[in-house]
Amino acid sequence: MNKLNIGLIGAGRIGRLHAEHLARNPLVKLHTISDVQLTEELRTWASNLGVPQLTDDYKQIMQNPAIDAVYICSSTNTHVTLIQEAAQAGKHIFCEKPISLDYRQTAEALATARECGVMLQTGFNRRFDHNFSRVRELVESGEIGRPHLIRITSRDPAPPSHDYIRVSGGLFMDMAIHDFDMARFLSGSEVKEVYAQGAVLVDPVIGELGDIDTAIITLLFDNGALGVIDNSRQAVYGYDQRVEVFGAEGSVGVTNDHPNTAEISKKTMVYRDNPKFFFLERYHEAYIDETRAFIHSIQTGQPPLVDGNDAYQSERIAFAAKKSLLERRPVQLSEIV
Amino acid sequence: MNKLNIGLIGAGRIGRLHAEHLARNPLVKLHTISDVQLTEELRTWASNLGVPQLTDDYKQIMQNPAIDAVYICSSTNTHVTLIQEAAQAGKHIFCEKPISLDYRQTAEALATARECGVMLQTGFNRRFDHNFSRVRELVESGEIGRPHLIRITSRDPAPPSHDYIRVSGGLFMDMAIHDFDMARFLSGSEVKEVYAQGAVLVDPVIGELGDIDTAIITLLFDNGALGVIDNSRQAVYGYDQRVEVFGAEGSVGVTNDHPNTAEISKKTMVYRDNPKFFFLERYHEAYIDETRAFIHSIQTGQPPLVDGNDAYQSERIAFAAKKSLLERRPVQLSEIV
Amino acid sequence: MNKLNIGLIGAGRIGRLHAEHLARNPLVKLHTISDVQLTEELRTWASNLGVPQLTDDYKQIMQNPAIDAVYICSSTNTHVTLIQEAAQAGKHIFCEKPISLDYRQTAEALATARECGVMLQTGFNRRFDHNFSRVRELVESGEIGRPHLIRITSRDPAPPSHDYIRVSGGLFMDMAIHDFDMARFLSGSEVKEVYAQGAVLVDPVIGELGDIDTAIITLLFDNGALGVIDNSRQAVYGYDQRVEVFGAEGSVGVTNDHPNTAEISKKTMVYRDNPKFFFLERYHEAYIDETRAFIHSIQTGQPPLVDGNDAYQSERIAFAAKKSLLERRPVQLSEIV
Amino acid sequence: MNKLNIGLIGAGRIGRLHAEHLARNPLVKLHTISDVQLTEELRTWASNLGVPQLTDDYKQIMQNPAIDAVYICSSTNTHVTLIQEAAQAGKHIFCEKPISLDYRQTAEALATARECGVMLQTGFNRRFDHNFSRVRELVESGEIGRPHLIRITSRDPAPPSHDYIRVSGGLFMDMAIHDFDMARFLSGSEVKEVYAQGAVLVDPVIGELGDIDTAIITLLFDNGALGVIDNSRQAVYGYDQRVEVFGAEGSVGVTNDHPNTAEISKKTMVYRDNPKFFFLERYHEAYIDETRAFIHSIQTGQPPLVDGNDAYQSERIAFAAKKSLLERRPVQLSEIV
Repeated sequence: MNKLNIGLIGAGRIGRLHAEHLARNPLVKLHTISDVQLTEELRTWASNLGVPQLTDDYKQIMQNPAIDAVYICSSTNTHVTLIQEAAQAGKHIFCEKPISLDYRQTAEALATARECGVMLQTGFNRRFDHNFSRVRELVESGEIGRPHLIRITSRDPAPPSHDYIRVSGGLFMDMAIHDFDMARFLSGSEVKEVYAQGAVLVDPVIGELGDIDTAIITLLFDNGALGVIDNSRQAVYGYDQRVEVFGAEGSVGVTNDHPNTAEISKKTMVYRDNPKFFFLERYHEAYIDETRAFIHSIQTGQPPLVDGNDAYQSERIAFAAKKSLLERRPVQLSEIV
Repeated sequence: MNKLNIGLIGAGRIGRLHAEHLARNPLVKLHTISDVQLTEELRTWASNLGVPQLTDDYKQIMQNPAIDAVYICSSTNTHVTLIQEAAQAGKHIFCEKPISLDYRQTAEALATARECGVMLQTGFNRRFDHNFSRVRELVESGEIGRPHLIRITSRDPAPPSHDYIRVSGGLFMDMAIHDFDMARFLSGSEVKEVYAQGAVLVDPVIGELGDIDTAIITLLFDNGALGVIDNSRQAVYGYDQRVEVFGAEGSVGVTNDHPNTAEISKKTMVYRDNPKFFFLERYHEAYIDETRAFIHSIQTGQPPLVDGNDAYQSERIAFAAKKSLLERRPVQLSEIV
Repeated sequence: MNKLNIGLIGAGRIGRLHAEHLARNPLVKLHTISDVQLTEELRTWASNLGVPQLTDDYKQIMQNPAIDAVYICSSTNTHVTLIQEAAQAGKHIFCEKPISLDYRQTAEALATARECGVMLQTGFNRRFDHNFSRVRELVESGEIGRPHLIRITSRDPAPPSHDYIRVSGGLFMDMAIHDFDMARFLSGSEVKEVYAQGAVLVDPVIGELGDIDTAIITLLFDNGALGVIDNSRQAVYGYDQRVEVFGAEGSVGVTNDHPNTAEISKKTMVYRDNPKFFFLERYHEAYIDETRAFIHSIQTGQPPLVDGNDAYQSERIAFAAKKSLLERRPVQLSEIV
Repeated sequence: MNKLNIGLIGAGRIGRLHAEHLARNPLVKLHTISDVQLTEELRTWASNLGVPQLTDDYKQIMQNPAIDAVYICSSTNTHVTLIQEAAQAGKHIFCEKPISLDYRQTAEALATARECGVMLQTGFNRRFDHNFSRVRELVESGEIGRPHLIRITSRDPAPPSHDYIRVSGGLFMDMAIHDFDMARFLSGSEVKEVYAQGAVLVDPVIGELGDIDTAIITLLFDNGALGVIDNSRQAVYGYDQRVEVFGAEGSVGVTNDHPNTAEISKKTMVYRDNPKFFFLERYHEAYIDETRAFIHSIQTGQPPLVDGNDAYQSERIAFAAKKSLLERRPVQLSEIV
């Protein structure tokens, strides 16, 4: 089987993560990486990775007919344009989340991809996590009966930089968007109504920048279930990623992964090591599997497991949450058109 | 030390529970039990317990100067009158929750007790639970820093009878009221705002009776923390009573008690026995300690650990939750006057 | 039903424990307590407990025809004589373990009790523990298939006094004897062979007194299963009482009880409170249930759940273990006659 | 940095495992694979892996000066010769365990490697496991004080074929040898005395073949600690790999890894998925890290983390265990010369 040629745009933290997994995947060739800033450090990293071409002009990816698929890992405000160019160049697309801070623009980008007949997968890596995918499997098989309550805890170990917060679209768009996708994934249902309560408890500067750092979001699903997400920008003990689906026939919950199972008993306490620190540690395998799934979709023609509509719907929920927070009332998803 | 003489009004399930603990407590004498229906079965039970006097007229308790304190375990609609009569008779009062379905009447009952200078303890037994009291202790000591998020899961193993639901005041008043008290207890703060989302997912008849059986309630506390309670009338795996307080310096969570620690590994799974089935099993020790604390307060003159105001405030929150559910909006506690 | 009258001999730590449970048990009357040293403190304690008669002459118990049953909680070297006297006086007997440091004398005491037709229950309280009894139940029901391996961990939080060690009969007789009984209880089989390895690692004085403080004991059972017990006189984190039975169809393990389920997540670790500290905390309920079972046996005429033969067999195993340690070889139980 | 060229001898299950990790390791080139049986299936597998040379003559590896290091994954009876040939050819050696069923031959092979100045690492993969290495780290740092007791549970999900048992050297040599290495690794001490108790409980044919399938092995270490290993050829619930080190200042225990953290609560039980099934699943990362460590040793000249002496000592312990089982007595390691 011929290897797929991949071009990757944006060699920041998440871009490099994907690049490293692509470089080790025997089914693909990481052909070209583009980044607007070609530092010496970046050159060394790419060379060690064995990437043949490094450029500061992403057009070299778009215009190269040898390249089959594109990873879009650049900043959010470039996603829509890049999706459209890639689609028009006939390349399959893997795009990081969110596609856009404006779900209407996302819709346009998706329309182009659809018209051009290319695959588009979105970077909701958590769907590939061994814990969450097991929950989904159990819900889908009916093991816990009809879902009644969905609880998601999602807390980062530390807030991002103030600079990032300025452009991120806010907690709902840059952080909780993963949880909105998880809520749809686990419930197997669309969201009908959102009520968001937020607070600035971690860092007052975050408040001054117009964002919140702590939130509780209540969801009502089309299938009648209720859901709740709690978020914090700072859990001092590390990345906290748990879910529970409670249903008519039982309940399934998953808790955090730890780096080992050691339990140490001392005179004053019994302790264990903290959960895996952040997404790089926790979702290491999920990122690998996400790329495997994307490659598999291209090779088999099967639709991606997480598509553009998944991004679109979660962006709408994020928008509704923001509106709810501002207007201090539950917001119907039907209002977000 | 002279034993305290106790009169107990209402020998239903919870009344008998208290009676049995009083009968074994070496510091008190369970002097009289009154109940409106003196069945043969009740007589046998009381006789086995060694209770000298059984009557269908609670006035015999109120009018007996030898009786120091009264346990009010009769139906909710009698509490206010009984508190007032007991207070005027100079007796200390232990009253089951809620004091009343109308927090304004509760306020009146409390005023009478205050004027008469008697102790009044409310039956929020969960404060005496080994798990929840440990959480409170850790929050109070500052171990987890300033509280940011409070999560309470509270699910019953099976719904009560339809007859009970008709008169109970609804899920917020008869079930979640314990959780409202827990929220105040754990946060060390009053509630400022409530938003309630409810659903009928367990039993449609509950909906026809005007109640809900599933709920998610968001709280905003005076101290800035956020809270969320999730309730269900039916957890098939048993009583589900968990809380978590997440703060600036860490988090503390407690999970359910199980009847044993056995873990059984079989060809297809690893399993353990279900959590303790319901409140009688789970809060067995808490009920004993609740009575010990009441006796201790009377003997030492120290104020009760859970007083009338605790009942009053939780009733106001229940009222606000109901209002929120009906009006589909967050409700300020300041509206509930 | 008439209450049983109980006499209790020996008001040390374990004697008082039984006395307190007897005083609260509605089916019995704790009639007389005897102890060789009637201190003021003991008088106060007994008076608070409501015990009518306190004496320094145990004969007042033996000779009182109103007394139905005797608790023997005095020092080990008195057990054989007291059993024989009580049996000849027609009283049922609850005797603390071990019955004697010499299993041949134990056999004589049991013979007397048998001839006199009185019940004799031995103080192997752990059989009544919620964890261990659940394991036994699962083994008995065949849930884990034929037992292959039995593992017992039994470690005390701190060594006893040197004075106690001088007279205790040594680690195998005073401490591991509980584990020998547990091995028989869980396997449902007699022990065929013992190999003991010991060490002095906690306190060199224990070695100077001719005892060990750390041990690993391998057992071969009549039913072909293998077993292993590990003991230490000092687990700094508290009483460590775990067992596992591994069989052809699965395995069941129980771990320690903790005072609560709180899990505290901090910047550097996740911790929980230590296990319950020692036998008073861990076996609180088991002691109550042990007495309930004894009373029930007397009332119904059913044989005791832990009888004299159970003490006798465990004493033989302790003797074999000591012999194995001295002679550095596996010892057959058939050698111990 | 130039890539290391590796030759691999023996493409059975474990050989292929190493080959696949070597093929993905960017620091090495898997240059040649030899196997005595070049099936079509093997050719396809090697081709997919991108291995340039496949041969049925291992001499092509030994005689190729371009090859820097050799993985010896062929059957145990070939190890000694292959080590000696590889050493004389100046190649670094990774050899699977055991090196030989006769520790004296192992000593000769090690002598040759030493004289030739090549590195030799042994395939005790478990030392690289995240759980066990954390235990070692905690012991080494003094966190639990001086070790008193070391407990190792090591049970396979299913017995190997009867054909394998015929040539494996028996349970102590093919299975428990990993545990002997673990005992030395965790205790930081050599073993002084061994007592082994064995049984045939899983499959009578194993007994007819002269082996056992169930064992309890007691160890006495040079540093005074005691140890115990329990083994079974068949744990129906999957691979059971746990250890505990109990010391003067505390204890550390590790339990099994599971494929996810999901806990499912149903009407009759709470369950979770079985532990990872067998060594391929459980030690996936450990195998990768084992190879990383070997490459690192070659590149840096640092001695291997698990060397030939580690194999030699564990083989001596296995021999002592077998002797103990046959002679029904504790055996001193000093007897095994």
